[in-house]
Amino acid sequence: MSKQLVFGHKNPDTDTICSALVYADLKKQLGANAEPARLGEVNKETQFALDYFKVDAPQLIEKVGEDVDSVILVDHNEFQQSVDNIKDVRVAEVVDHHRVSNFETKEPLYFRAEPVGCTATILNKMYKENGVELSKENAGLLLSAIISDSLLLKSPTCTQEDVDAAHELAEIAGVDLEKYGLDMLQAGADLSDKSARELITMDAKEFSMGDAKVEIAQVNTVDASKVYELQADIEAEIDKNISDKGLDLFLFVVTDILNNDSEVLARGEGKAKVEEAFSATLDANNRALLKGVVSRKKQIVTALTDAYTK
Amino acid sequence: MSKQLVFGHKNPDTDTICSALVYADLKKQLGANAEPARLGEVNKETQFALDYFKVDAPQLIEKVGEDVDSVILVDHNEFQQSVDNIKDVRVAEVVDHHRVSNFETKEPLYFRAEPVGCTATILNKMYKENGVELSKENAGLLLSAIISDSLLLKSPTCTQEDVDAAHELAEIAGVDLEKYGLDMLQAGADLSDKSARELITMDAKEFSMGDAKVEIAQVNTVDASKVYELQADIEAEIDKNISDKGLDLFLFVVTDILNNDSEVLARGEGKAKVEEAFSATLDANNRALLKGVVSRKKQIVTALTDAYTK
Repeated sequence: MSKQLVFGHKNPDTDTICSALVYADLKKQLGANAEPARLGEVNKETQFALDYFKVDAPQLIEKVGEDVDSVILVDHNEFQQSVDNIKDVRVAEVVDHHRVSNFETKEPLYFRAEPVGCTATILNKMYKENGVELSKENAGLLLSAIISDSLLLKSPTCTQEDVDAAHELAEIAGVDLEKYGLDMLQAGADLSDKSARELITMDAKEFSMGDAKVEIAQVNTVDASKVYELQADIEAEIDKNISDKGLDLFLFVVTDILNNDSEVLARGEGKAKVEEAFSATLDANNRALLKGVVSRKKQIVTALTDAYTK
Repeated sequence: MSKQLVFGHKNPDTDTICSALVYADLKKQLGANAEPARLGEVNKETQFALDYFKVDAPQLIEKVGEDVDSVILVDHNEFQQSVDNIKDVRVAEVVDHHRVSNFETKEPLYFRAEPVGCTATILNKMYKENGVELSKENAGLLLSAIISDSLLLKSPTCTQEDVDAAHELAEIAGVDLEKYGLDMLQAGADLSDKSARELITMDAKEFSMGDAKVEIAQVNTVDASKVYELQADIEAEIDKNISDKGLDLFLFVVTDILNNDSEVLARGEGKAKVEEAFSATLDANNRALLKGVVSRKKQIVTALTDAYTK
């Protein structure tokens, strides 16, 4: 039977890894020869969830092999965030919760995007729609994805659907939502062993905004000042990245998961766009504290795209 | 309450008009301030359906007004097929059954595309999912859309879901599927009063294929030779269109709804791509008979895109 690969975006986060695992399972239960995959290293937060629910990480792939008939994208649709040879493969399905951009197919497909906080919330519905029961492990993985994307239901991207799904899934998974959630987020916020290069790549995404190429990296922490002890090295890595990729702007976002705000560092010719987008002033260190800003998707990409396209 | 417009593509066909009418009704029943609209003249086939079920055509718009908060696209997603100021408005939803291309948003949205033969088939499901009952009139409109897009369930784009929906809807609408379907298709196939210009514009769509701009117009008939009595005038109109829009190729597709094949006429620099795509030879009149080809979407756009991008 023709093989189908299910994967999320590069620099995988918890939603991307867990949604690939769980949707591949649903497809298998519905009769498809589906396998989950990932496009990069598993981060500490995700590893905490996988360990807790005793699930193996999906296979790491660099490109889609010739034995694969079609792919299913979860948690992303923009080609620059996907596998390198995405343009050479048939995309059969997309299940996502992001804006739609830089995506196209030759043929009709099943494309399902909903403006909720997490892909896992949509997958929880799809199990019900198909009358398939979620195992304890799969419920735990979907719950972990929601906690991650919503910063424990506190992000402005979090909808009532996400909240309801999280409570439902915590019950099936048999965990205390608050306690499990904080433990998982803190496991991810441990940046003590990260190099400057790792900090700016571990959760980085590239975006097209107007004619500009913008990369935005985000890390979660409980102490932003610790992260910025490496500022000189971080800036050197960012500048190298800007010249390698021809970026107009690189924005490094350090999000405090206890205070729910972000201290950002901007480099590149587009620095002024950051000030414009957030009505903020970058200090002498190229940094600004953005109060209440925690969501790359809903608060940062939208504001910057506005600044670049108006 | 903020106003939402629901509309399909330019050069509206029966699926586009009926899906806009019926989805606006569903949104209203669910509490939205939604209004259906259309981007062009109602064709004879669609008018037959509207008259039969005693429903008024939606309002004609040239652009989205400033009083509109967001729009819902049905039966299309490619911006070049949409309203002229589509890039200035917020797209809140898409319900479609075509490939995804030249579409992007700044924010997450509800995007639902499924690889079925007709938007109306998806809307029929959405009524059920939302527990809303279809009126006799709305069932008749959805049925008309399926008959139109599937050439009475004979097109290769027609799936089992479309067939099942058509039978279900015919029952609610209280019509005989075969008889009503043939009457409606024949009303649309009456081209006797059409000028050459009308023939090439009444159901024309523009596509990006690789770097090429391609326009494909399709008419249904019961006698292709009648249409080609106007060939000299048709070619003159096509050539004008090619130079006005800077097209690489214009393909005029005359589909015989009784024999289920198409006689095509190709003009423009990309003529050879047509021969390549269909392994056919254009005769001295730039025409070729494509046996069994009736679907622009599934048989023509895909084959031509392959020829342009390989």
